[in-house]
Amino acid sequence: MQKIQIFDTTLRDGEQVPGCKLNTEEKVALALRLESLGVDVIEAGFPISSPGDYFSVQEIARVVRNATVCGLTRAVRQDIEVAAEALRGAARPRIHTGIGTSDLHIKAKFNSTQAEILQRAIQCVRWAREFTDDVEFYAEDAGRTDNEYLARVVEAVIKAGATVVNIPDTTGYCLPHQYGEKIAYLMNNVPNIDKAILSCHCHNDLGLATANAIAGIIAGARQIECTINGLGERAGNTSLEEVVMIIRQHKDMGFYTDVEATMLNQISREVSDTMRMPVQPNKAIVGSNAFAHSSGIHQDGFLKLAQTYEIIAPEEVGADSSKIVLTARSGRSALAYRFRKLGYEFTRNDVDVLYDKFLRVADLKKEVQDEDLLQLAKLYAPAEHA
Amino acid sequence: MQKIQIFDTTLRDGEQVPGCKLNTEEKVALALRLESLGVDVIEAGFPISSPGDYFSVQEIARVVRNATVCGLTRAVRQDIEVAAEALRGAARPRIHTGIGTSDLHIKAKFNSTQAEILQRAIQCVRWAREFTDDVEFYAEDAGRTDNEYLARVVEAVIKAGATVVNIPDTTGYCLPHQYGEKIAYLMNNVPNIDKAILSCHCHNDLGLATANAIAGIIAGARQIECTINGLGERAGNTSLEEVVMIIRQHKDMGFYTDVEATMLNQISREVSDTMRMPVQPNKAIVGSNAFAHSSGIHQDGFLKLAQTYEIIAPEEVGADSSKIVLTARSGRSALAYRFRKLGYEFTRNDVDVLYDKFLRVADLKKEVQDEDLLQLAKLYAPAEHA
Repeated sequence: MQKIQIFDTTLRDGEQVPGCKLNTEEKVALALRLESLGVDVIEAGFPISSPGDYFSVQEIARVVRNATVCGLTRAVRQDIEVAAEALRGAARPRIHTGIGTSDLHIKAKFNSTQAEILQRAIQCVRWAREFTDDVEFYAEDAGRTDNEYLARVVEAVIKAGATVVNIPDTTGYCLPHQYGEKIAYLMNNVPNIDKAILSCHCHNDLGLATANAIAGIIAGARQIECTINGLGERAGNTSLEEVVMIIRQHKDMGFYTDVEATMLNQISREVSDTMRMPVQPNKAIVGSNAFAHSSGIHQDGFLKLAQTYEIIAPEEVGADSSKIVLTARSGRSALAYRFRKLGYEFTRNDVDVLYDKFLRVADLKKEVQDEDLLQLAKLYAPAEHA
Repeated sequence: MQKIQIFDTTLRDGEQVPGCKLNTEEKVALALRLESLGVDVIEAGFPISSPGDYFSVQEIARVVRNATVCGLTRAVRQDIEVAAEALRGAARPRIHTGIGTSDLHIKAKFNSTQAEILQRAIQCVRWAREFTDDVEFYAEDAGRTDNEYLARVVEAVIKAGATVVNIPDTTGYCLPHQYGEKIAYLMNNVPNIDKAILSCHCHNDLGLATANAIAGIIAGARQIECTINGLGERAGNTSLEEVVMIIRQHKDMGFYTDVEATMLNQISREVSDTMRMPVQPNKAIVGSNAFAHSSGIHQDGFLKLAQTYEIIAPEEVGADSSKIVLTARSGRSALAYRFRKLGYEFTRNDVDVLYDKFLRVADLKKEVQDEDLLQLAKLYAPAEHA
């Protein structure tokens, strides 16, 4: 089994989202929770961006002892010096530096050339290596960067001392097989690739961030950059909870992470609360409906054997136990089950009669509650249960 | 270019979600919107499940004229008769019938055998063909069904008259390459596969529903079952808006749909409102932050050329124009841009000075608003702008 490093960027890519800003105290508390969750790297912020962010990175570096603490920079000497300063107290400091490598970024953002950008990439890694042995390079917009040039950049930054090379699909453009092929190309065409690990940083603009990260590790990457609840710029990043559970559910891929899955639901709620970013009910793993069964066919199967409709037991991810919700789409077995939970053992014939009455109630309501069932049971069999 | 049929199941798999129940009037209104959106098939409900659902399917069948209207059934004669009755007024009626084919479903749900289930599959398709020429068969839990047996079932139901065969990953278990390989296996091993089309119905329990559906069409499927906002049982289904935009953005796949993309944001809000199911801000395509740029690096690039950080123009999907949100993570170019929008043309030096003042405000606030900028500008240059 090979380990996949979990690089959490909730406090950087997540926190830069409109409305998600946290104060230092909140960031430190969250960093400590991420450390106990078992993530390998905590990207704590972008120190040069503001004095507040600098201070938060400094405080997180001071208190986090086991996880690597990482600060983001551009390929600019001052950014790197400021990040190194902010990370000075860290047990395991990492500087994350880099530059855009796609033609669009090289021309429109930098008004530069591939050759010049290659030199700037090498330079920023060398600068960062003056301050720490753990340097991660990002090739921004790698998702739209020509593979041959990208391979030359990756080779050069590894030679310059990068220990992790991040291949971001910055705009969330790639299809999973394309992102996987890009990683495979680098694994096969960068001569010194054994000296570093590749990292997947995927965005969710087309809803593919999780699938792309998984395609990346299958192709040879060994780190995934992700956030709790998939927060991040625009449509967000790869969801930490999703990749962790995919790796657990598909053990035949041969990977593991050090994340404690039973904490996932709790930490999802904490992030949602402190960042005031709602999680939709149909969010995978951590949505409030993720373990709710409502159609009759599903409920019937679920009650016979949970695995017929559930691949993850809710307790595995710290969620409340599976719910059997009664709606007009529910069937007799769910109704009988809910009656039994209320202490009523009805015969098959009883349930048939009650089911018709139940449907009349259910057609008028979104969800039939215990009170409604008690009312139905009382009207049906007043003597027995008086 | 090959057409991908869009089969919308917002009114069936979406509506069966806890809290999402709609009355007939709401369902009819939504069905008409889906028809004008350009979906090919509207799954209107599960007629036998309740009198209310029966009535809704009947009303939708009456008013929808261009899209196919589909009713769900189990492999039970009465279900099929009731669905046929509900669909009687439809211009293009489809009956969607089927049965579980995985060993888990065969044993735990039906206490049956592969041979017996095969017969029931053939039987239900024959029954449905008595009422309509357009019969879709679902092999429930196909995602966990042995491919060799699945191929035999698909061959048999096509022979019995199924025109569409749905391969549901009912529990959301498959990885994209696995789901794609399953579809490819069927394309290559079902002798009469040219007599029907395969359909992808994927669930989102691991966050892979969209990627799996795309893997399915790449491998040969020609219909995607999906819902607005990805609603559906548990973590939901494939998001209609995501697959439609992936197909548009990746024209090199050679596919198109008839969906009018500019309606996507409006219909997403309508579904969210009537079903009272919030869409998270970081939802792809239709989330409120899907086109918001807040980090300095992104804003700077975006202002030079939108495509550096945006693969879809917001107007393409009917969203409000891209937002440049000012936070402590914003840079000078975003600040100058926002000042310009307020009528202030500052020099580079002015912006440098103002930027420091701006950061002090931004470190205290989640988002810096126009009022804050006007205040800053006034204090900085009271004479000029008095």
